Amino acid sequence: MTLYIIGLGLGDEKDITVKGLEAVKRCSKVFLEHYTSVLSSSVENLSKFYEKDIIIASRDMVEKDADNILEDAKDKDVAFLVVGDVFGATTHTDIFLRAKEKNIDVKVIHNASIINVVGATGLELYKFGKTTSIVFDDDGWLPDTPYKVIKMNKTNGLHTLCLLDIKTAETSKKDMLKGKDNPKDARFMTVKKACEILLKLEEKNKENLIDENLMVIGVARMGQETQKIIHASIKDFLESVYMGEPLHSLIIPGNLHFVEEEFLEQYEIKEKLKKEN
Amino acid sequence: MTLYIIGLGLGDEKDITVKGLEAVKRCSKVFLEHYTSVLSSSVENLSKFYEKDIIIASRDMVEKDADNILEDAKDKDVAFLVVGDVFGATTHTDIFLRAKEKNIDVKVIHNASIINVVGATGLELYKFGKTTSIVFDDDGWLPDTPYKVIKMNKTNGLHTLCLLDIKTAETSKKDMLKGKDNPKDARFMTVKKACEILLKLEEKNKENLIDENLMVIGVARMGQETQKIIHASIKDFLESVYMGEPLHSLIIPGNLHFVEEEFLEQYEIKEKLKKEN
Repeated sequence: MTLYIIGLGLGDEKDITVKGLEAVKRCSKVFLEHYTSVLSSSVENLSKFYEKDIIIASRDMVEKDADNILEDAKDKDVAFLVVGDVFGATTHTDIFLRAKEKNIDVKVIHNASIINVVGATGLELYKFGKTTSIVFDDDGWLPDTPYKVIKMNKTNGLHTLCLLDIKTAETSKKDMLKGKDNPKDARFMTVKKACEILLKLEEKNKENLIDENLMVIGVARMGQETQKIIHASIKDFLESVYMGEPLHSLIIPGNLHFVEEEFLEQYEIKEKLKKEN
Repeated sequence: MTLYIIGLGLGDEKDITVKGLEAVKRCSKVFLEHYTSVLSSSVENLSKFYEKDIIIASRDMVEKDADNILEDAKDKDVAFLVVGDVFGATTHTDIFLRAKEKNIDVKVIHNASIINVVGATGLELYKFGKTTSIVFDDDGWLPDTPYKVIKMNKTNGLHTLCLLDIKTAETSKKDMLKGKDNPKDARFMTVKKACEILLKLEEKNKENLIDENLMVIGVARMGQETQKIIHASIKDFLESVYMGEPLHSLIIPGNLHFVEEEFLEQYEIKEKLKKEN
């Protein structure tokens, strides 16, 4: 039978495509990969809207236990739901390849991803350079990668999309013993935290790439009703801009065309927002 | 009232999201921007599925006559449908800004775009550098931009997505007088033609970036049932690989991780395909 790998987009239960919804309804088992991103809908709402039971596929399950998902797909239609688009994470590439190896028919149904939805900032998508990730520095580990990528892109006039860390590991270890994966306990990096890390990276690398007056773009809950885009200085993000609930991402703009500048104006802070973060 | 700018994705009438479909059904006027890309569905099929008359918005109409679309949105709900995602082209950014200026409520409903759907090649999205475009060289004009972008990306180990030209101008001029825009007369650049242009650019720039043994990835009709991905040399694309109907795009890979290589294996040509192009 068929393994449907279906992108859910970034919003709620209704951001699935009509094609995706029809596929889900055909399936006898529905897995939801639930750790690399978050929707504004609860799993209960998804389940109700799809009229299907949903099996949460934890990181552990997808990476170590993919064979069970694939075993099911041998004789029934199985859906594997992914927040955003299908090929956003290596895990999905892996499950696709493993299915092909087992001669299981795989159908991919695409959707929006943070990679294209950042176009809503008004920055031209073709002017983005390499994407980078900023990870939590709790354990003192401060990789230079984002600094290097931002430098490379800025040198070439290009924008940098920084994906911000999602930490589920601590809770996973604890909860796994109880057989559950609770994404509510996950930690999501805020734009503010990312700005702190960028300043630390400047202190370490000292290449005059980043200072607190650098204008950056913070985005939160892209593609959702409560989506927020703010164009402000790093200092503003550290002191007074509250982006609210996850997910957050950060964009370091390269050279701006006047149309991009005009578009960004609507996202500038008119007055200092309440400091809550 | 509200102007809904709705991404249709890349496939057919069922690649609209459930949210997008609900919005279209609420609208009293539905415009379809119809020149930057093509779906596998006819406008008739879209119209039938949405249960709405569809007004084709030609390039001329969208760029010069956006005010009429916006005038409608002042007192009714209006949908502006876009192939792919909403912010893929400057025109859409423009209509968004103009609506905001007129204090018209704008809601954006995202979808998949070629920018993220190329993840289906197995190449990691975060390893793509700047996107470039290759245009027809009919009039002898051969801009170096794609060559420079590919060079910059390759130097940094990054992949380059090359969007291939769509030429509607000639027919537009003629048809505009008759008040019509016929996208069937449009010319779409093939992967083969793009490979020819890349070799011409090498001849002109002589920086040993491209030769006919360079392995590239040709993609056609991404996100559609008949989607085709081929990993082969430029020579193969020139001599024997037929990619079929539009749209085509071309990817010049940067450094490949072994998982990317493993994924690409399924797209290699096992035997020479029939030369039809």
